[in-house]
Amino acid sequence: MTTANTPPLRVAMIGYAFMGAAHSQAWRTAAHVADLPLRPEMTVVVGRHADSVAAAANHLGWQESATDWREVIARPDIDLVDICTPGDTHAEIATAALAAGKHVLCEKPLANSVVEAESMVAAAAAAAGQQAMVGFTYRRTPAVALAREMVANGSIGTVRQVRAQYLQDWLSDENSPLTWRMDKEKAGSGALGDIGAHIIDAIEFVTGQRLTGVAGRLETFVKQRPVAADSPGGASITGIAGNGFGPVTVDDAAVFFGTLESGALAAFEASRFALGRKNAFRFEINGSDGSLAFDFESMNVLEHYDGRLPADRAGFSRILVTEPSHPYLSSWWPPGHGLGYEHGFTHQVIDLVRAIASGGTARPTFADGLHVQQVLAAVEASSAAGSGWQPIPIEQEH
Amino acid sequence: MTTANTPPLRVAMIGYAFMGAAHSQAWRTAAHVADLPLRPEMTVVVGRHADSVAAAANHLGWQESATDWREVIARPDIDLVDICTPGDTHAEIATAALAAGKHVLCEKPLANSVVEAESMVAAAAAAAGQQAMVGFTYRRTPAVALAREMVANGSIGTVRQVRAQYLQDWLSDENSPLTWRMDKEKAGSGALGDIGAHIIDAIEFVTGQRLTGVAGRLETFVKQRPVAADSPGGASITGIAGNGFGPVTVDDAAVFFGTLESGALAAFEASRFALGRKNAFRFEINGSDGSLAFDFESMNVLEHYDGRLPADRAGFSRILVTEPSHPYLSSWWPPGHGLGYEHGFTHQVIDLVRAIASGGTARPTFADGLHVQQVLAAVEASSAAGSGWQPIPIEQEH
Amino acid sequence: MTTANTPPLRVAMIGYAFMGAAHSQAWRTAAHVADLPLRPEMTVVVGRHADSVAAAANHLGWQESATDWREVIARPDIDLVDICTPGDTHAEIATAALAAGKHVLCEKPLANSVVEAESMVAAAAAAAGQQAMVGFTYRRTPAVALAREMVANGSIGTVRQVRAQYLQDWLSDENSPLTWRMDKEKAGSGALGDIGAHIIDAIEFVTGQRLTGVAGRLETFVKQRPVAADSPGGASITGIAGNGFGPVTVDDAAVFFGTLESGALAAFEASRFALGRKNAFRFEINGSDGSLAFDFESMNVLEHYDGRLPADRAGFSRILVTEPSHPYLSSWWPPGHGLGYEHGFTHQVIDLVRAIASGGTARPTFADGLHVQQVLAAVEASSAAGSGWQPIPIEQEH
Amino acid sequence: MTTANTPPLRVAMIGYAFMGAAHSQAWRTAAHVADLPLRPEMTVVVGRHADSVAAAANHLGWQESATDWREVIARPDIDLVDICTPGDTHAEIATAALAAGKHVLCEKPLANSVVEAESMVAAAAAAAGQQAMVGFTYRRTPAVALAREMVANGSIGTVRQVRAQYLQDWLSDENSPLTWRMDKEKAGSGALGDIGAHIIDAIEFVTGQRLTGVAGRLETFVKQRPVAADSPGGASITGIAGNGFGPVTVDDAAVFFGTLESGALAAFEASRFALGRKNAFRFEINGSDGSLAFDFESMNVLEHYDGRLPADRAGFSRILVTEPSHPYLSSWWPPGHGLGYEHGFTHQVIDLVRAIASGGTARPTFADGLHVQQVLAAVEASSAAGSGWQPIPIEQEH
Repeated sequence: MTTANTPPLRVAMIGYAFMGAAHSQAWRTAAHVADLPLRPEMTVVVGRHADSVAAAANHLGWQESATDWREVIARPDIDLVDICTPGDTHAEIATAALAAGKHVLCEKPLANSVVEAESMVAAAAAAAGQQAMVGFTYRRTPAVALAREMVANGSIGTVRQVRAQYLQDWLSDENSPLTWRMDKEKAGSGALGDIGAHIIDAIEFVTGQRLTGVAGRLETFVKQRPVAADSPGGASITGIAGNGFGPVTVDDAAVFFGTLESGALAAFEASRFALGRKNAFRFEINGSDGSLAFDFESMNVLEHYDGRLPADRAGFSRILVTEPSHPYLSSWWPPGHGLGYEHGFTHQVIDLVRAIASGGTARPTFADGLHVQQVLAAVEASSAAGSGWQPIPIEQEH
Repeated sequence: MTTANTPPLRVAMIGYAFMGAAHSQAWRTAAHVADLPLRPEMTVVVGRHADSVAAAANHLGWQESATDWREVIARPDIDLVDICTPGDTHAEIATAALAAGKHVLCEKPLANSVVEAESMVAAAAAAAGQQAMVGFTYRRTPAVALAREMVANGSIGTVRQVRAQYLQDWLSDENSPLTWRMDKEKAGSGALGDIGAHIIDAIEFVTGQRLTGVAGRLETFVKQRPVAADSPGGASITGIAGNGFGPVTVDDAAVFFGTLESGALAAFEASRFALGRKNAFRFEINGSDGSLAFDFESMNVLEHYDGRLPADRAGFSRILVTEPSHPYLSSWWPPGHGLGYEHGFTHQVIDLVRAIASGGTARPTFADGLHVQQVLAAVEASSAAGSGWQPIPIEQEH
Repeated sequence: MTTANTPPLRVAMIGYAFMGAAHSQAWRTAAHVADLPLRPEMTVVVGRHADSVAAAANHLGWQESATDWREVIARPDIDLVDICTPGDTHAEIATAALAAGKHVLCEKPLANSVVEAESMVAAAAAAAGQQAMVGFTYRRTPAVALAREMVANGSIGTVRQVRAQYLQDWLSDENSPLTWRMDKEKAGSGALGDIGAHIIDAIEFVTGQRLTGVAGRLETFVKQRPVAADSPGGASITGIAGNGFGPVTVDDAAVFFGTLESGALAAFEASRFALGRKNAFRFEINGSDGSLAFDFESMNVLEHYDGRLPADRAGFSRILVTEPSHPYLSSWWPPGHGLGYEHGFTHQVIDLVRAIASGGTARPTFADGLHVQQVLAAVEASSAAGSGWQPIPIEQEH
Repeated sequence: MTTANTPPLRVAMIGYAFMGAAHSQAWRTAAHVADLPLRPEMTVVVGRHADSVAAAANHLGWQESATDWREVIARPDIDLVDICTPGDTHAEIATAALAAGKHVLCEKPLANSVVEAESMVAAAAAAAGQQAMVGFTYRRTPAVALAREMVANGSIGTVRQVRAQYLQDWLSDENSPLTWRMDKEKAGSGALGDIGAHIIDAIEFVTGQRLTGVAGRLETFVKQRPVAADSPGGASITGIAGNGFGPVTVDDAAVFFGTLESGALAAFEASRFALGRKNAFRFEINGSDGSLAFDFESMNVLEHYDGRLPADRAGFSRILVTEPSHPYLSSWWPPGHGLGYEHGFTHQVIDLVRAIASGGTARPTFADGLHVQQVLAAVEASSAAGSGWQPIPIEQEH
């Protein structure tokens, strides 16, 4: 059990918006629900504006605030750097932090380009012994982790088909203003990189296989949007017309399909225009002996079809993933008392802290993140080339 | 297979409203989907008004129409009388038909009172060798029949608890007009007898046990309703006030609980005021080794919880009751191609025709129907007496 | 109301397997539940083997049987030819029947190739005044018809995205024997043409738009299967090896995406390997003001998200499509008393008979069927060419 | 926003088992997700065994631990006492804490008897100005709070019927050992008081009405259980037989129905034997204009049927209760990113802290808790008296 004698793990967090709030809740909670070998200390939070970051430090519970991430990274009393900034800054910060001897936890997507992601993987390789983890937290939803367990232990036999969707609707209103998230220079891509990345990682995680090729199509339904005075990042977007409208330079939706290493067929869709779907991160996996289905909008449930049962007794069962023997659940509440979105972040901290203490490797690594980046790039290339097939390089081991 | 040489079963149907239409569809269909030892002939339909019944005969596919049920019952070319009239006429017609040597299929509830029902059971006993069946067709929904099979073969162990509801909403609008269905003299009772009877029969069928006692409460939410000029039976209702409103003399909703022979606990509710529930005939049965759940609004599904599985693999499974090995399904379509409401009536005809040919007993019998009537009476007596417990007599064998 | 004076519509049905049984049930039922201007007569059923077709005639309720479809088509006492044979015979029979002056109802897919389908459209054009309808019956599931109504009346605004799946699992067992359905020469294609065709038609029907281009990939997971002695059509398959295994020459699964005329994005998947999905014909349509979702495994439900409601009151609603004001429902039972698979066929007969009497056009026409065939061909071409984009010709009017 | 200058609220928590862990998570979190006028300090946790409570203090994040609750209550640096002990100790601790001038938050049920609960209400009345709140946290599940809002603003019209169930299954295994929870002396009652109390409170909260009378039946399915050496409280249970089995003296399940102030009819069921239901706290409320349904196993969803829509557009809608305008949600994550069980406790702290600062009254009060106790007593009395009706006294204002 974590005790007064448990050594500290001193954390600096860069960025404090949505992801920063979720990470803070995780750092604050982890040691109080699980037995951790290191006790996280919320040492310092970093932001650009001194007043805002000071207020955030107070609200989110960080001991200090700072405005210069380079100075913070150089501090000897920091053990781990937690990067919660937009994707275009990940490579620089992560590389510097690794070079400074810190463990790094970096929000997804790993970077905005394959080239940046490759440089980060190289930096991580040069810093062997330090953790370099990317934050695909949906892996740590208990039902998703259970799905991986069940695939790995043969519960559904050989994986043959996968379908995965990540559907949101927050851009469905065409009067919703332009922000940096719709600016290719800042955001890299739209639905594809923001949420498509999650389902790519999830399918590779659950099946234990990499995607080997894809074909896809990106679509932008609303090609211009009004720039609001207070649109985050709106002012810096290039190409704003006299009417106050600026161009949307990323995809609103992406559809693609691909193959996994075993030859299984996988279909994907990511959209910010699926009206009524708020956070429908969903997948279904069909194997030779069974199937699994998940939807984050019912995140405490994994559906399982056991194809080995007699046909007249078989059916998709709703496993309520709240038993103490389910992944991550021993730390929490009795059966039926479900968890929420933020718990994935707490589980991420638990796994990362344990890996640091044990010397193991916290997954997903930067290499895992690079691979996802390569898939994203292949989908974009396919879309640009009339949806033709794009192979994806697979590293020997993963 | 039914062939040109298959002997006929000549049917007379009395009444041709909602139930008459459903029965007609069943008589017309049964021999063409199942192999029947007798080929039903839709010989004659009987109604009060010559023109209407003639039109109905033509539309529903009966060879003849008639207006005097006594004459029809006396005809030597009739083998079976199918009674689809309101409950207050059941006893007289059924008794006469049995006395005339006909098989009888009588819509539920068997009668409007225990006394009438007892007389019908006596008539059936005196006509041994003829079928006297009551039309609790929900028994013949494949998922309900599967539930009985699974209880009987021990799939859920010892039954401990039952909850059953039959929820409709067609009286929820308080301006909906008064009809004979809200008149105690004609209808016997309201939600209790009309739909509560169905869940009582279903639970006794599925568990294989009789109710041994009940306590309950009836409620009438809307105590007066307007009498429309064309309200079916409206004109004959007594007590209509000058303002054109008449009294509702039956229950709008009934709640009751009881015990089964084994000591299991059962909770029931019937309502015509459950806004949004159109035909929610639902039950859940908890045993020592598993549970079953059903809702007619998803009539092709039976949910099953297998309590013998490890806790972290168990969950309610949605068995799609459309496999050829499921009850009644060998006659129909491939898996996943579901059935509808009317199919229960076709299955009823199939079972009844086979029982006639084999000399077996088509269940539910009039005795089964009498028992349901006794439960209804006990609920009414309990409600009238401050919800105190009312024991129910159980015959030795059933 | 259909009366004794209603003129007859004399039907000849070619083929009497699964589809023949479903069509028979529809011809037998339609006039008894709806008011039809013509009364269908089940005049003759045609098959290759005299004994079998005679037994089928008796069982399914046809007045006569015959073995030569050409003779039957030539009979003056036949008004309509209903083609329920495999796809490779459709063109010849339909063309002959149209030339003989008969109305034609042809099961889907219209043909096994675009060339055949084009010849059928030409034959239909030459027989103006006769109906030439193709049997995409899922259009006549009330919830699907309601979806079309709601799109057409603007309930969900501009259609932006569509996702449709038709998932079955009957080939998931790799020991399941080879039949003609897995033989490209006989069947044309596998999952793509058999069930993919249905979702293509359904999406075009519901949105009122044609697909303008696609990219796709076909996959065959099990490349050889044992040939059983009694495999339907097994003996005639070419390429059977000494070990009794023969090649599967069609697709087990197909994934593809495309665009609709308005620029909407559509993703499709058809599979016979989705273990646990029995007849999961599903679609979801996202518009600018709302969304619709359907799954045939819950065929009496249409889900609707009304995006015009305040965000905190909106949610996908389960419309139980059983109200008298819903499409086709006025002929059937009270609210909540659902329909089954076969009812789509009855509705098809109702619409076809009314079109014949009124001189209107029964949709889907052969031209609609040809277009579906063109989409199927484009998916196959795309798959063969590395998933590159394939445009689809769109006729001016449709 | 909570700042460094926000005054503290110093908390002492008595008891640290399941409820203590949930309360700790709430005290730790509340000020970091909501803007609170007082900053909770986790000052001291109290338990019987010094070592255990010291370890708990460290693990759960309390500054100190102590073993004598009387001493702690007397400390001037404590502002609020949070009682998480079993029910038989509530009255003594709460009364003493109120007398010492502390605010009190007391876990439910308020006490084990009406007499004790009455004494607590009297103590609260004598300590006007201090909060005396009872912990029916399910009120603070956002979907439950939304249900109350919708009833209050007329969304469903006049409430006519209610059905509520709280189903668990942790005693379904008859070999599960005897603990103090099955001992009437310690626990007061079984399923009735433990979980039945929650649905009574929830229905009164959501409808804004008190129950005015009930009839019910309690059942104990397994009347003896083995006493395990380590059964919590097992050793102190009286009546253990030589075979190591002791008597279960509380109910395993309770069924009851009742009336609300407006005359609405309500049916309830609480069970620890509903195999497969883990924490199925469910209710459905039917009004004259709509209905609401909730199940804690899908805690982020409220189902709503809007009876004012045209019949062919109406259906139960799944409102995902995760919008910023939903109760409590402004503190949390974007739409679709659901909450978990523990969040109700955090919301409880938020409301309680705000009431302390504003001088308002934190509901549910001890008086609310007393009323629930009166309902429980009436159900027990009814069951003991053959299920006869038991009226329940209603205070003038509530």
